[in-house]
Amino acid sequence: MSKLQEHSMKFLEDKNPVIVSNRGPVEFFREGGKIVMKRGAGGLVSTLLPVVERFSGVWVSSAMTLEDAEVAAGYPENRVPLPEDNPRFTVSFVIVDRERYESYYSVISNPLLWFVQHYMWNTPYAPEIDDKIYTAWDEGYVHVNRKFADRVVSEVERNEKNPLIMLQDYHLYLCPGLIKKKVGDVFLSQFIHIPWPQRDYFRILPEKMRESIINGLLSNTVLGFHIERYCSNFMECCGDLGYDVDAENGVVLNGDEKTFVRNYPISVDPDSIRRTATSDAFREKEDFVRKLKGDMFLIYRTDRADLSKNIIRGFRAYELFLREHPEFHGKVKFLATGKPTRQQIKEYRDYADSVKSTVDEINSIYGKSTWKPIEYIHRADYELVAAAFKNYDCLIVNPLADGMNIVPKEAALMNEKSGTVILSENAGCYEELAEYVIGVNPFDIRETADAIYRSITMNFDERKKLSDGLKLKVRERTIYHWINEQFDDFERLMK
Amino acid sequence: MSKLQEHSMKFLEDKNPVIVSNRGPVEFFREGGKIVMKRGAGGLVSTLLPVVERFSGVWVSSAMTLEDAEVAAGYPENRVPLPEDNPRFTVSFVIVDRERYESYYSVISNPLLWFVQHYMWNTPYAPEIDDKIYTAWDEGYVHVNRKFADRVVSEVERNEKNPLIMLQDYHLYLCPGLIKKKVGDVFLSQFIHIPWPQRDYFRILPEKMRESIINGLLSNTVLGFHIERYCSNFMECCGDLGYDVDAENGVVLNGDEKTFVRNYPISVDPDSIRRTATSDAFREKEDFVRKLKGDMFLIYRTDRADLSKNIIRGFRAYELFLREHPEFHGKVKFLATGKPTRQQIKEYRDYADSVKSTVDEINSIYGKSTWKPIEYIHRADYELVAAAFKNYDCLIVNPLADGMNIVPKEAALMNEKSGTVILSENAGCYEELAEYVIGVNPFDIRETADAIYRSITMNFDERKKLSDGLKLKVRERTIYHWINEQFDDFERLMK
Repeated sequence: MSKLQEHSMKFLEDKNPVIVSNRGPVEFFREGGKIVMKRGAGGLVSTLLPVVERFSGVWVSSAMTLEDAEVAAGYPENRVPLPEDNPRFTVSFVIVDRERYESYYSVISNPLLWFVQHYMWNTPYAPEIDDKIYTAWDEGYVHVNRKFADRVVSEVERNEKNPLIMLQDYHLYLCPGLIKKKVGDVFLSQFIHIPWPQRDYFRILPEKMRESIINGLLSNTVLGFHIERYCSNFMECCGDLGYDVDAENGVVLNGDEKTFVRNYPISVDPDSIRRTATSDAFREKEDFVRKLKGDMFLIYRTDRADLSKNIIRGFRAYELFLREHPEFHGKVKFLATGKPTRQQIKEYRDYADSVKSTVDEINSIYGKSTWKPIEYIHRADYELVAAAFKNYDCLIVNPLADGMNIVPKEAALMNEKSGTVILSENAGCYEELAEYVIGVNPFDIRETADAIYRSITMNFDERKKLSDGLKLKVRERTIYHWINEQFDDFERLMK
Repeated sequence: MSKLQEHSMKFLEDKNPVIVSNRGPVEFFREGGKIVMKRGAGGLVSTLLPVVERFSGVWVSSAMTLEDAEVAAGYPENRVPLPEDNPRFTVSFVIVDRERYESYYSVISNPLLWFVQHYMWNTPYAPEIDDKIYTAWDEGYVHVNRKFADRVVSEVERNEKNPLIMLQDYHLYLCPGLIKKKVGDVFLSQFIHIPWPQRDYFRILPEKMRESIINGLLSNTVLGFHIERYCSNFMECCGDLGYDVDAENGVVLNGDEKTFVRNYPISVDPDSIRRTATSDAFREKEDFVRKLKGDMFLIYRTDRADLSKNIIRGFRAYELFLREHPEFHGKVKFLATGKPTRQQIKEYRDYADSVKSTVDEINSIYGKSTWKPIEYIHRADYELVAAAFKNYDCLIVNPLADGMNIVPKEAALMNEKSGTVILSENAGCYEELAEYVIGVNPFDIRETADAIYRSITMNFDERKKLSDGLKLKVRERTIYHWINEQFDDFERLMK
């Protein structure tokens, strides 16, 4: 907690922090017949959970696993005090029918909203907005948002302290409006972790849905995005629906209420990153990475197998590099680690297949008995990722679109090889890091291949200058800036 | 020529009109061993050609057919005086190697630019900007634009009158810049007939191409689009590349030069439309349409088989309507006429196949021996289209995105059945016609199916009110407004 400003601590003293997100800070699962708990990784949990713990707050989230539901069922109203031996906060589980959850999560949130917000629809063919979508909206998305809203309201009502409600992300666009309907006078904030699209593309959604989404979001007093571009895109969409927008001051009017649209670029926690690199599990994985690398130049990428991550074009660029530079055959290794994601959605299964066949194709064309150009590990634990972060010579992060993408930030802090970073201009973090990376247009395979060549042939001084600059830049702004800035704005605007 | 303002006539008196477009006003082809000429249909030719004829101007365009090239070869510098028996203007043919033309036309102009400007890329997979694209750009698009520019310059130099250069459309984005390089002090204008995309989506193109395109277009003093939205999207893209933009006044600065970005919504020529409906060929086609229609409710659509036209979702909506309303089986007929287009491009072949299989599927599910739900005519002549315009009860025009789409305008003037129009909100013409059509989100099959039902069940008074209103609205603004407004601006800005 030492990273919170004194100021923020004081502000929080009389507050009841209520964090609301689809995925919660802990997950229960079964191991050897026993139910065990796992704390979520990721910056959001490691930043917000200490706040919730310190001020005895609550985290409202979906029961994701069967074990979540089982544990929740053991407590009144599914409110689980944690840690169980010495409770300091509560996870308030929202439990939803499987079918409705699927509609909410695997039809509306993904792919519909996710694809619109990342400019990914193959528009001549999809989406087909039909009754399946409308039903999933009404019976899934609206329903789950209502369940979340009801739960937040009951959390607010059971606690005498002033609630500090922080909604998270695109699963919960309707939640603030539904809360406001029940409790008119409550301060709401929401942070959107993914990009916001421009007016023309947002119009893929039916007007009724756009209106509900914008109206919901405008029930927040503070609405946060990672970067200025998403803020202005959001306000453009508001204007398109007839709302009064003061773009210069980042204010949208909804009736008598004002929403302040702000950017708070998220970042990482350097201390927690440093700690990762000390465990036994880490050392074991580092041995593996070093063996794999040998004396080769190590190119690394790590992503969930999401279509927005642009994994195929990354490999195609590598292939082009190999085709043009046989002198590097056997002297370079591309390690890619992944994480299967959303495999219940057809678009994701198809994409995972395409990635796999691209890798196989390149390995079969360029591979030799002594050298495999790409090592693709579909499911990697964080220790392996961290070991690769420490040892890469070149990191590729080339998403089509990406809210922030903190991989370059985490990786830069951990890297010890003066590794270069090839970074998509469409990743949110490019706005901050442009000066210290090799920027690429993610659609441009030629440019990406040239960036690989530039990276592998760059002299040490230049590499070191970029890499040192990047480390400094990332350290300048940690995740505590992200949270403190929000608390500052909340305090100012709560009056 | 009577439709040109006196004012415009006077302005043109001392001018040499030079129209520049990829497809020219005439096409030569072989019929029974003899080469014959066909005048282009379409509003552009019927509006601009009289201007060119009256003031002895020139039309610079590509030789599209082998016969074009053959005829062109018979004249010095490929300048063909027309009509051959009594020349009043010149077609100045630009002849390009087949391979370079294909790169210019079938790689860069379509699909690359066309898909970006209509938001149609399946971005997780395409486009892959690779050497094929870069080579097609350098050796195709740049090359052909240079050929056009050289030709325009030579047309300007051979004539003592003041040139009035009017470039047309997205094939020629670089042309104005290349002309300016050779003849610094010349007044240039260009009209873009397709949508302009927003900043985020335009960024699919490599920066070098975006910079060349914008820089080229900013060599025009007047740059025209159909509607305000495209103007503001264009200026946004300029701003993104660092140009000084005065959005309120529609001015972009390029060095010392100003480009005025204006909207001139194109329209139709009511007289020429009226004339179509009197020929023998027309009467023959009308018999065909009437027989097909019988006493059924006739739904009609007509489009090139372009992915932007959203033909599949149109049929899917009709299918949904049929599924929900068996009472209309056998009482409604969907006539769709088409025109094969760009079949050398894979995306277009695939789309044509999908359209065909959608039609076959619906006909096989809902058809009976006595009733075929959809009649799809792949290649229709204009007389058939006109006959269908006269006789439809409901017209569907539901593009994903469309610069203007004049089908609703032409059709409304010709229709005699108080037919309704279901119109995509993303068609440029929706801005003018919204009040008199049934607007739909083109992605929304549910909404489109409901629109069909609404149309078929609408009472006569309401149909008549919409349809009469639409006719009046279209007559208010003809294609002569489009051209006179441009001449007015040219005159004002030439000083």
